[in-house]
Amino acid sequence: MDGVGTKLKIAGALAKHDTIGIDLVNHCVNDILTCGAEPLFFLDYIAMGKLVTEQVEAIAKGLAQACREVGCALIGGETAEMPGLYAGEDYDLVGFIVGVVEKEKLIMGKTIGVGDTIIGLPSSGLHTNGYSLVRKVFGEAKPVLDAYYPELGRTLGEALLEPHRCYYHQLKPLLPLIKGMAHITGGGLIDNVPRVLPQGVAAQFHRRAWTVPPIFQLIQQRGNVAHDEMYHVFNMGIGMVVICSPDNADQFTKAIPGAKVIGEVVEQADKARVVIK
Amino acid sequence: MDGVGTKLKIAGALAKHDTIGIDLVNHCVNDILTCGAEPLFFLDYIAMGKLVTEQVEAIAKGLAQACREVGCALIGGETAEMPGLYAGEDYDLVGFIVGVVEKEKLIMGKTIGVGDTIIGLPSSGLHTNGYSLVRKVFGEAKPVLDAYYPELGRTLGEALLEPHRCYYHQLKPLLPLIKGMAHITGGGLIDNVPRVLPQGVAAQFHRRAWTVPPIFQLIQQRGNVAHDEMYHVFNMGIGMVVICSPDNADQFTKAIPGAKVIGEVVEQADKARVVIK
Repeated sequence: MDGVGTKLKIAGALAKHDTIGIDLVNHCVNDILTCGAEPLFFLDYIAMGKLVTEQVEAIAKGLAQACREVGCALIGGETAEMPGLYAGEDYDLVGFIVGVVEKEKLIMGKTIGVGDTIIGLPSSGLHTNGYSLVRKVFGEAKPVLDAYYPELGRTLGEALLEPHRCYYHQLKPLLPLIKGMAHITGGGLIDNVPRVLPQGVAAQFHRRAWTVPPIFQLIQQRGNVAHDEMYHVFNMGIGMVVICSPDNADQFTKAIPGAKVIGEVVEQADKARVVIK
Repeated sequence: MDGVGTKLKIAGALAKHDTIGIDLVNHCVNDILTCGAEPLFFLDYIAMGKLVTEQVEAIAKGLAQACREVGCALIGGETAEMPGLYAGEDYDLVGFIVGVVEKEKLIMGKTIGVGDTIIGLPSSGLHTNGYSLVRKVFGEAKPVLDAYYPELGRTLGEALLEPHRCYYHQLKPLLPLIKGMAHITGGGLIDNVPRVLPQGVAAQFHRRAWTVPPIFQLIQQRGNVAHDEMYHVFNMGIGMVVICSPDNADQFTKAIPGAKVIGEVVEQADKARVVIK
């Protein structure tokens, strides 16, 4: 069960509601994929102050499209009108997914050991995290979001609304080779990767092993955000982390566009479970 | 998947958050009970502008208590901080439940026919519907909610916050005798009962077969709400409707305190699927 955070506010500011449902479904699909599960069915909850039919239709269109792409049944949901709780055309959007994996195929991270390879899969942008910080930096006025940035090749708003990438189809054929997986959401690499590590080991990342996409550089510069905070709030270009035996690393980097070896599993030296060098 | 509507605003006005989770779970349990399903697992989503730990703890306490009472696993959830979307200490609360029923035991209403008996199970109050209308009538100022009403035997706020009743334990042993069931939520008897009726039949209710609880009379008088609207917005004292063969009606009225025969299934005479005489 998850939401899309205040990416909703950017969608609202730009009156573009047909991709936020894609964000939600893909976020949920990636979440359950980390234990090896395939999506079975999905339900949504949309709450707003006053029902705006076109808005709900646009949201549902995105939900349906993303569900279709992973063969997940969109079996229902709830649309709630809650005057006094949501202001203006504000709404909240929540997704619930159930998936299935055979017990013996569960990916739990238990076999991860020192020397294993960490592979990063490219994100498509901020995915669904860090928007409260982004809104502090840029605000949410339409003219600001409509500004074109050459380094982004599009407007700020377009870059911010880029849908959350789904890793299901890329990773499905490779699931048997995966020892552990972390979906890089709120908390970034720092908070999400330790969840999958067994005791006594740490994840060491090489900052220079991948290029941080321009959108993150822009946020950091404009907001004068500390380096550490950036890696703690945003995915910094890595949407999914896969841990596998070094022998199998090639299979990921060859099969998945943009996938790179970005670190390795090391002995835990101190309290830190994640080291970004 | 469902929420508790703007009952949340009443809970907020009275700073009482330990029963709203009970409302949510019981609402969800009743919803899936209508097809004969037993609850398996539940997840919650709590979204607020700024995390108020005591509030989340109180909400979770109610969720846990209600799940425990029906043997449903509370397996997780999401707590989202969304500044700018929720004002002050406002929050939204969403529940998701998965239940299970053997295919041959599914209650679908297909066998309902003319002459079947309609049994009403007493609600404990408004349950989780009609709060936007209530707030129009009374507002949500604490002094108004704290006023004592002799006919309620308690304050207005206490009556309004009375938790949604759960019908699981009362109905579970009688499920094999049930032809159809409707959980009376938003839309009242008028909108919820037709969902379970096969084509060609209608539900005829006898208004005088049950006593509308004082809280509904109070709302109607103070708000000068039309009779029809009352039956279309509120449960009017009937939280669950069960349809069974006349031979079996006794088993419900004897086993369940307050359960009454309140109508019967008739041939559909015109467009109306529900007639309240």
